[in-house]
Amino acid sequence: MPHIKLPELPGIVGLLVQYPHTAGPLNGLADALLRGPSPLTPGEREAIAAYVSSRNECTFCSGVHGAVATHLLHQEGRTAEHAESDPKMRALLSIAEKVRVDGRSVSRADIDLAREHGADDKAIHDTVLIAAAFSMFNRYVDGLATLAPERPEEYAQHARHLAEGGYLAPPPR
Amino acid sequence: MPHIKLPELPGIVGLLVQYPHTAGPLNGLADALLRGPSPLTPGEREAIAAYVSSRNECTFCSGVHGAVATHLLHQEGRTAEHAESDPKMRALLSIAEKVRVDGRSVSRADIDLAREHGADDKAIHDTVLIAAAFSMFNRYVDGLATLAPERPEEYAQHARHLAEGGYLAPPPR
Repeated sequence: MPHIKLPELPGIVGLLVQYPHTAGPLNGLADALLRGPSPLTPGEREAIAAYVSSRNECTFCSGVHGAVATHLLHQEGRTAEHAESDPKMRALLSIAEKVRVDGRSVSRADIDLAREHGADDKAIHDTVLIAAAFSMFNRYVDGLATLAPERPEEYAQHARHLAEGGYLAPPPR
Repeated sequence: MPHIKLPELPGIVGLLVQYPHTAGPLNGLADALLRGPSPLTPGEREAIAAYVSSRNECTFCSGVHGAVATHLLHQEGRTAEHAESDPKMRALLSIAEKVRVDGRSVSRADIDLAREHGADDKAIHDTVLIAAAFSMFNRYVDGLATLAPERPEEYAQHARHLAEGGYLAPPPR
């Protein structure tokens, strides 16, 4: 049961409906970061979001963003396995993991490795901010004990909506 | 030296100038959360932000938000010590600390204690989201190795600007 009164909607969805004043910039941030201009594809960025959420063991966020990543990577002609074995993505996921634990642990060598595999300043920036933002979203969702559906198909439906409509479209009714 | 090319501006300021696309929603979130409608005063909310930043050992964020909290609490007729010894604030800071470490560690007993001391749903919500948001801002600032000024007066100047103008006003030139 959530720690505060919320509509019966899973994860961050109930929080965004109940607290619209902060929902605006939170959705705006997700959209700018995961769908806005970037050298990283939307599928790659969702894969970083899903990875951080999974490492933080946030059931709702890893369920949704894992499904969004799979959907978008498929559209981009790849699978999650392809993306994770790509040397540039491996270097960026390693930076994301360090940011998740403690931002100060990212080393010059981590950055150099990502650059060697083709990551530019914007790709490195976006990776760090995605890892930082999901350090927030995961804590917001779990710190208020929101509902996490157990059936994978519930994530699939929400994920399809986000994959196709982004984060600024009104939620389906 | 920062991990990416940035204007010579301290902490998050250089990141917001260099990456305006994400700066919009980041500033919007800070303003909604720290200055928007809430049962917690702006001084109390800045004190929670400063506390989380200090526990994360983020020099820039704890320097700035500590100074903003002192400034605003003074305007509210209190000191940081008053605020920290208030039973409601103590209960909320304890929730913020748990969110900082792992959102899942917030217990029903933590929430009940805050309610006993007068915190309502919105105060609890805002505390959790402030702690979560500074888990992001701290990682963004430190994950990219931004500059942290050593002289306290540099924080005082930036803090006065934020205390008086909020997070949506253009930075001073």
